[in-house]
Amino acid sequence: MKRIAESTVRRLSLYLRFLEEFEKAGKLTIASGELARSGGTTSAQVRKDLSFFGSFGKRGLGYSIRELTGAIRGILGLKHSWKVVIVGAGKIGAALAQYSGFPDRGFNVVGIFDNDPRRVGQWYDGVAVADVCSLEADVRRLGAEIAIIAVPPQAAQGVADRVAAAGIHAILDFSTAAITVPPSVTLRSMNMAVELEILSFALTEGARQ
Amino acid sequence: MKRIAESTVRRLSLYLRFLEEFEKAGKLTIASGELARSGGTTSAQVRKDLSFFGSFGKRGLGYSIRELTGAIRGILGLKHSWKVVIVGAGKIGAALAQYSGFPDRGFNVVGIFDNDPRRVGQWYDGVAVADVCSLEADVRRLGAEIAIIAVPPQAAQGVADRVAAAGIHAILDFSTAAITVPPSVTLRSMNMAVELEILSFALTEGARQ
Repeated sequence: MKRIAESTVRRLSLYLRFLEEFEKAGKLTIASGELARSGGTTSAQVRKDLSFFGSFGKRGLGYSIRELTGAIRGILGLKHSWKVVIVGAGKIGAALAQYSGFPDRGFNVVGIFDNDPRRVGQWYDGVAVADVCSLEADVRRLGAEIAIIAVPPQAAQGVADRVAAAGIHAILDFSTAAITVPPSVTLRSMNMAVELEILSFALTEGARQ
Repeated sequence: MKRIAESTVRRLSLYLRFLEEFEKAGKLTIASGELARSGGTTSAQVRKDLSFFGSFGKRGLGYSIRELTGAIRGILGLKHSWKVVIVGAGKIGAALAQYSGFPDRGFNVVGIFDNDPRRVGQWYDGVAVADVCSLEADVRRLGAEIAIIAVPPQAAQGVADRVAAAGIHAILDFSTAAITVPPSVTLRSMNMAVELEILSFALTEGARQ
């Protein structure tokens, strides 16, 4: 299959959000224009994005929501259930460990780790916080595939190195550090600091104008 | 001033992360190549990004970390302190309300709102959760400038509409909904669902190859 750009994957994920909402509302079909608005893009872009996966739309009738949802979920690997470990059981890590949106979407938290003895042994939705010293062994034993990093910034790179060495190929980083990973690992950052600074810049720029 | 692209603002924010770490470590100057690695970019890109703000670097000597940090903080609007409201005091909202990274960076949480009577009145770092029915009045009274949305996806658009109507021009959305805002409002999304699906796609694509 042709390699798909990250920007396309991101739009597919946004389309999926909207398709699921339309499906819940009982709609059966959707026009490319409606999907375009959800992804902040154009009808032409939607048709191009979806053309990767064969032909779903019928001219004048729009796309079948059920078919399209299924196709996008397949492409994004969401027909599979993924095993996730969370490293860091502080406020953010603990909130994530209890976030019902993860299992709902097929991301199952199988391990939580911390280096603070006061946190080790606490239970979150059926998973006990383990000592981070067993991280590598547990990642292998559990067959974990995705690591969520929720440790202080200065500890983030060390954790990334350790989970990568243990065979994890996908990391979601919630620390505000700028970490690097080997080419075999896909890293996504939920960097609040960057997003807030983009907002601060926009407000400042607005005031300058 | 020339309009700065969002991708540039994002890189400036990443450079700032690294500059602050180097500053803490007692370094005085930094070469464009070092900054490039931190932003996942090239020396030429760094020099271009920084050229927006005048001339900081000396050929062969690198950039003064103190000057560059100050200039980037100025551009990003971080010499100002911003008033932030959090809407939604569930697990994620409560974690954010207590997140020390916010005040450290000049983002001060001045209000927290929820529609659940069991949450209203709870205190987080000196701020009591208020009933969301007073959201508009409180946003105006407090002079809030940034809203963080941490409500369930189906409630996110309604909250965005309300804070925008109350005069907020910057929103950070933690719900996994795809919401829209008027052109006068800058919206940034911390969309875990999208980031996890990009990881799921990368893992699936890796397995396909």
